[in-house]
Amino acid sequence: MTVRIPPRSGKGFRLNKGEILKVTDPQGEQVSDMVAFNAADTKEYISSGRSIDYASKMFLSTGDILYSNRSNPMFEIISDDVKRHDFTLTPCSREMFRKLYGETNPPPGCQGNLEMALQPYGIAPDQVPIAFNIFMHVAVNGETGEIEVRPPLSKAGDSIKLRAEMDMIVALTACSAGQSNNHTYKPIDFELLPEGAADG
Amino acid sequence: MTVRIPPRSGKGFRLNKGEILKVTDPQGEQVSDMVAFNAADTKEYISSGRSIDYASKMFLSTGDILYSNRSNPMFEIISDDVKRHDFTLTPCSREMFRKLYGETNPPPGCQGNLEMALQPYGIAPDQVPIAFNIFMHVAVNGETGEIEVRPPLSKAGDSIKLRAEMDMIVALTACSAGQSNNHTYKPIDFELLPEGAADG
Repeated sequence: MTVRIPPRSGKGFRLNKGEILKVTDPQGEQVSDMVAFNAADTKEYISSGRSIDYASKMFLSTGDILYSNRSNPMFEIISDDVKRHDFTLTPCSREMFRKLYGETNPPPGCQGNLEMALQPYGIAPDQVPIAFNIFMHVAVNGETGEIEVRPPLSKAGDSIKLRAEMDMIVALTACSAGQSNNHTYKPIDFELLPEGAADG
Repeated sequence: MTVRIPPRSGKGFRLNKGEILKVTDPQGEQVSDMVAFNAADTKEYISSGRSIDYASKMFLSTGDILYSNRSNPMFEIISDDVKRHDFTLTPCSREMFRKLYGETNPPPGCQGNLEMALQPYGIAPDQVPIAFNIFMHVAVNGETGEIEVRPPLSKAGDSIKLRAEMDMIVALTACSAGQSNNHTYKPIDFELLPEGAADG
């Protein structure tokens, strides 16, 4: 069953070990920030720093593992139509909209939407880590270190599938930041598929 | 007063708002992983994801701000002899030495040394975030995303000065990872200078 995340919002859910999370960009050029926590102990969380270190690369795709802060595998990426995601930046937030966009009355952003989605699971705002920013296209200048947020490479219907390597609480957003999604605030779809549905 | 951190170890200390932390590489080509927490509420911690986002660059140097997960300034870099540090990777750890170096009896690494340095302040192992890895030279291929840990660009006596923007608990290491320091495990020196000592 496909669940639709409306524009500029988020959803939290439980994902069991072996299940496959399929995240689809239904209209193209939209980003979904994903965070994850060990369901049995939410102090264990998805860690960009461990994942990038163990993969020795910043851009993760099919075959790569997303690790926790305790160095345990949380997800394996088992298929990926887009092959470009960001794992460097914290979710967009009221403070980000003020600082980078100069907005005086900013929306809660992915940070606020993740906080609301995680609150029922007892996960506090300070626990929201750097997200795996699905479909987010951040260009990196390897010489200067400058980064630039560009429109996602995702086309309508493109998806990524991640197999859960532990029981987790996961939250996803349909991103609120204009720079991330080419100034078109769109929904994100996701499905939980049973183990073995990798080719489904 | 200069404090020396012996090779492959770490130290924790309180740093008050306005004080200047000077970190020196006394022998050259050594890395110091730095983490920081709000002294009044250690759930607020240094955040690479916020800092990189607000600076729009991965390599931070003089004039750049290191932000917390709550988007508050923690440090301003006020001088920097080396101009190349990493803010992408979690501290080296037993698990990293096993996974990347194939070591069967690994040392605690910067992760373990930071945990020990922070324990007296009531900061738990799971709270150790991505560090500001002073003098660490991580080459980034902007096309492929591949990263490569190279010897630091620091020469003997090179230093960085950071002004504290809040009262903090800080921990520093003399790094334990051969790849980070050209396989020479050396000490790191630091000093706490009073406000206004920026040119000292």
